[in-house]
Amino acid sequence: MKGTLYIISSPSGAGKSSLLKALFEKFNQNDSMYLSVSHTTRNPRPGEVNHVHYHFVTVDEFKALIERNAFYEWANVFDKYYGTSRELVQQALNNGKDVFLDIDWQGARQLRDMEPDTQSIFILPPSLEELRKRLINRGQDSEETINKRMSKAQREISHYDEYDYCLINDDFDTTLNSLWSIISANRCKVNVVKENFSQCLNNLLENYQKE
Amino acid sequence: MKGTLYIISSPSGAGKSSLLKALFEKFNQNDSMYLSVSHTTRNPRPGEVNHVHYHFVTVDEFKALIERNAFYEWANVFDKYYGTSRELVQQALNNGKDVFLDIDWQGARQLRDMEPDTQSIFILPPSLEELRKRLINRGQDSEETINKRMSKAQREISHYDEYDYCLINDDFDTTLNSLWSIISANRCKVNVVKENFSQCLNNLLENYQKE
Repeated sequence: MKGTLYIISSPSGAGKSSLLKALFEKFNQNDSMYLSVSHTTRNPRPGEVNHVHYHFVTVDEFKALIERNAFYEWANVFDKYYGTSRELVQQALNNGKDVFLDIDWQGARQLRDMEPDTQSIFILPPSLEELRKRLINRGQDSEETINKRMSKAQREISHYDEYDYCLINDDFDTTLNSLWSIISANRCKVNVVKENFSQCLNNLLENYQKE
Repeated sequence: MKGTLYIISSPSGAGKSSLLKALFEKFNQNDSMYLSVSHTTRNPRPGEVNHVHYHFVTVDEFKALIERNAFYEWANVFDKYYGTSRELVQQALNNGKDVFLDIDWQGARQLRDMEPDTQSIFILPPSLEELRKRLINRGQDSEETINKRMSKAQREISHYDEYDYCLINDDFDTTLNSLWSIISANRCKVNVVKENFSQCLNNLLENYQKE
């Protein structure tokens, strides 16, 4: 069994986190999907749970992981390490799970080079006005910060066409179903079926000599 | 708006006709899909409805269609003409509909050459034993005919890996949902979204200069 690796990107405010949360709640009863979680050496913030929000590790542990090439990518930001585990992703894929990586367009480019079979999905807000409204409604940011987020969002959005799929998140439930349809459809791709249902296919072509 | 052209193939008895019927009944309320129907000059059999089972035309009408290159392919079998209309398919695609062509692997090869953006789906029975059981349960054929159908089925099946998607029709409802997920997912492919939601995408990148 072999799962598929998915990259999910979107500008802040497009609804990516809520969609991933709902995807796993609604469609992962059989544990066929795995959401990749980053490693970090920073301390957990209040409410953050180990292995759910991050894998919290010591600097020594992190360095040992770097040593054995366990990361796709890692970075040191303000003296704290952050990394995306290649080992855990590969392990889940080899267990037949579809794996989801929540990264930006630059990370997506690197991942595609390393894992050419990756499927990538970009989630868009329905309009700039709606995106601004969602950012304002969060009530977290000043107008200046929101303006910065808006221009960062447009920069991110300008890369949408490097992705395989693109979801315009207008109605949440519609977008969630579309996201699930992408995952379901990929499980029907001929190469995936060939890998995961070889016994059935061997039975169907038993004793058959192709002309 | 531009739809996607789908080829659906399967050996006799795998459930293709029932699946297409259920697909249109359950998922075509908004008339976004179109099932291509062949033209023929033969007479309707009892129960056959014009434009549903075939487009029944006269020999002169058929020859005029050939003249104006209206067919993807046509054939004369026992002095009766049969053809697959390129005109009607293109018209439906240009109206934004997804179009379904029910053809065999040889027709599929030709279509892919003519329409490279075609998506193709192969429907398989879960096993040879199950396929034989289904053919016997139809109660239409002698054992000899069933044996012939079985070896023809294996020949057809041997071409499954020329298709983009492959559905193993074990449980009908599961297969129907998988079929629908393929169609839904294709509507989220970046090139399809680009074509069909250009106004939304233009809004999102308004005044933006890509670096």
